[in-house]
Amino acid sequence: MSKVTLKVIAKTLGISTSTVSKALKNYSDINEETKTKVQELAKKLNYTPNSFAVSLRMKESKTIGVIIPTMVHHFFSNVIEGILKEAERNNYMIFLMQSNEDFELEKKQIDLLLSKGVDGVIMSLSNKTRDFSHLQKVIDSNVPLILFDKIAKTINCSKVLIDDRKAAYDAVTHLINKGYKRIAHFRGDLNPQNSIDRFLGYKKALLDHNIEFDPTLVYICDNNSDFSDGFNSAEKLINDHGKNVDGLFTVNDLIAIGALDYFNKNNIKVPEQIAIFGFSNWFMTKITNPSLSSIDQNALKMGEKSTEILIKEIDYKHKGIAYEYQKIILDTELIIRNSC
Amino acid sequence: MSKVTLKVIAKTLGISTSTVSKALKNYSDINEETKTKVQELAKKLNYTPNSFAVSLRMKESKTIGVIIPTMVHHFFSNVIEGILKEAERNNYMIFLMQSNEDFELEKKQIDLLLSKGVDGVIMSLSNKTRDFSHLQKVIDSNVPLILFDKIAKTINCSKVLIDDRKAAYDAVTHLINKGYKRIAHFRGDLNPQNSIDRFLGYKKALLDHNIEFDPTLVYICDNNSDFSDGFNSAEKLINDHGKNVDGLFTVNDLIAIGALDYFNKNNIKVPEQIAIFGFSNWFMTKITNPSLSSIDQNALKMGEKSTEILIKEIDYKHKGIAYEYQKIILDTELIIRNSC
Repeated sequence: MSKVTLKVIAKTLGISTSTVSKALKNYSDINEETKTKVQELAKKLNYTPNSFAVSLRMKESKTIGVIIPTMVHHFFSNVIEGILKEAERNNYMIFLMQSNEDFELEKKQIDLLLSKGVDGVIMSLSNKTRDFSHLQKVIDSNVPLILFDKIAKTINCSKVLIDDRKAAYDAVTHLINKGYKRIAHFRGDLNPQNSIDRFLGYKKALLDHNIEFDPTLVYICDNNSDFSDGFNSAEKLINDHGKNVDGLFTVNDLIAIGALDYFNKNNIKVPEQIAIFGFSNWFMTKITNPSLSSIDQNALKMGEKSTEILIKEIDYKHKGIAYEYQKIILDTELIIRNSC
Repeated sequence: MSKVTLKVIAKTLGISTSTVSKALKNYSDINEETKTKVQELAKKLNYTPNSFAVSLRMKESKTIGVIIPTMVHHFFSNVIEGILKEAERNNYMIFLMQSNEDFELEKKQIDLLLSKGVDGVIMSLSNKTRDFSHLQKVIDSNVPLILFDKIAKTINCSKVLIDDRKAAYDAVTHLINKGYKRIAHFRGDLNPQNSIDRFLGYKKALLDHNIEFDPTLVYICDNNSDFSDGFNSAEKLINDHGKNVDGLFTVNDLIAIGALDYFNKNNIKVPEQIAIFGFSNWFMTKITNPSLSSIDQNALKMGEKSTEILIKEIDYKHKGIAYEYQKIILDTELIIRNSC
C-alpha cells in the first residue's frame, strides 16, 4: 500500500495537517470529535499514530544521488566503491548517474535527483561545466551537497579534494632533484579546477628551482580518460623538441601510460632519455615497463569521506542542528618507481 | 503531497479497489451512490479520474536496482556504463549496489531494492552465491529480473550472457593451431558458471585436438580481480612444470597481465617460450609488452541489452501483455595480438 501522509487525512477530513498531527498525538487543544475522526481514519488506513510520528520525524528517503562525469575510469570506480561502502554502512541507497562530460545532461540529472527527493547529492563536475546555477538549486532546495575532485570554487558547500597544486609541485620537484631540467607537462582540459591546479603546481616547482617555464613544453590532452591522447602528445613532443626534453609530468596515469607506450615503441629509453611521472597511482602503474612513478590520491577514501560528511549534514539538517561546510584535503603520497 | 492510490480510497470507504477503479471510470455496474462517494473523495484529494488512471497505468517508480559483485573492475564499469546509458534514454534511474562477493549482503540488497519499490532488477551474482531463493523472491514479487554474466542456470528469468564455453574453446583452438601443445589454464573460482564454462571450453578444445588433458596444468585463481593471482600462479606453474608448458589461457585479462608480469620479470619470453591468451579485452591489453591476445565480450552492449530487455518486460507487465523470458547470447570476438 502506498504511503499515506498526514496531508491525505487532512484533505479527506477538510482540516489542517497540524490539526491531524496534534489529534494523532492526542493534544488537549483539539476537540474530541476531531480526534476521533482523525484516529478512526488513521486506523482504517492501517496507520497508528506512532507510525505516523515515525514517518514524520524520518521524512527521509534514505537515498543519495551521485553524479560523476565518467564511469569507465579507475579513479571514479574507486570513489564509487567508497561511496557504496559508506552508504551501505549507514543504510543509504545510491542513485548513480553519469554526466558523460555533458553539462546539459548534468543539469537534467540534478533536476531528476531533486524530483526523486534524495536526501543529499555527491558529485564531481563535468569538464564542460562553467555555470553552477544547478548546484545552487540543490543548496536552495535545502538538500546537502558535497563536491569532490572536480569542484566549483565559488559554490558554498562541503568539498572533499586533494591539494592538486602541492601534489604536482612535489612530483615535479622530485624530477628536478633527480637532475631532470627540461620537463614537459601533458595537462588536462583548460576548465577543470584540478587540471588548472596540477598545471600551476608544475609551473611553480620549475620557477622555485630557477628553471625557466617554457610554454611550448605544455600540451593539452582534451580527453584525459584515453591513453591515446598520451601517445599522440608524446609523438608531438618528440617531433617538436627532439632530444631537448628529459622529463614529463602528466595530469593522470592513463596519459602517462599512453606516452610510455609511444616512447617504448620508438626506442626512446625511459627513464634514461626521458623520465615520466603520472598522477593517481592507478594499479596498472605497478606493472608497466618500466613501472611508473605516480601520486596516490586515495580515491576510495575520497568516496567514503564525501559520503560520511554528507550523511552527517543530512542528520544535522533533520535534527535542526546548525553545521558549517567542511573542506577536506586528503593526503596524497608520491610513489616513486622506475620511470624516473 | 504523497501519492494516493486507489487502495487509500478503497480503504477509506471500505470498498474494493476494483470498485473504486470502476467508479472512477464511471462503469455502469457500480451504483450511483458509490460512484458519487468515490468521485467526491477523489476530488477532495485533488485527484481527477484521469490522473488516477494515469497513476494506475504508471504505477512505476521509474527506478531499476542493479547489483554487481565488484565495482573496481573494467568489465563491470563498462556494463554499468551501458546500463546507465540505456536507462537514461528511457528516463529510468539506477540504484547501484555492490555485493562485494558477499552472499548475505546480496540477499539484504535484494530486500532493500524490493522495499524501495524498484520496477526491475538487473544483477550479476557474487561468486559465493549458491542458494537462489532471493532471486526467486524477486520473481515472486512480480518484479522483472535480468541476470547477466554470472547467472543462475536454474532461475527462470531473462538472461544476457556470452557463450563462455565457445569463446574459451575458440581461444584455446587458436593456440593449438599456432602449434602450442602444453597449454595451462588459470581458471576462476569453482563456483561461478562463467568460470566453469571457460574451463570446459578449454578442456574440450584440447580433447577435440587429441591433446591429453593434464589437470596439473589447471590452477585456480580465487580472487580473480587481482593480477597478483596471475603473478603467483605463473610462479607456481613454472616451478611445477619448468619448460614443459608452452601456452596459457587465463579466465580474465587481469590474471593474464599478472602472469605476463611474472614472465617478463623472470626472462621467460612471451610468446617464444610461452604464449598467453586472456579474456575480456580490457583496454590495457593493447599496451602490455607484448600486447595481449584476448576475447572481446562487449560489456557495454551487455549492460545496454540487459536494460533494454528489462524495460520491455516492465512495460509489458504494466500493460498486462504476456512475455517470454529471453536468453540473449552476445557475440564474442577473438582479438589476436603479439602474446601468441
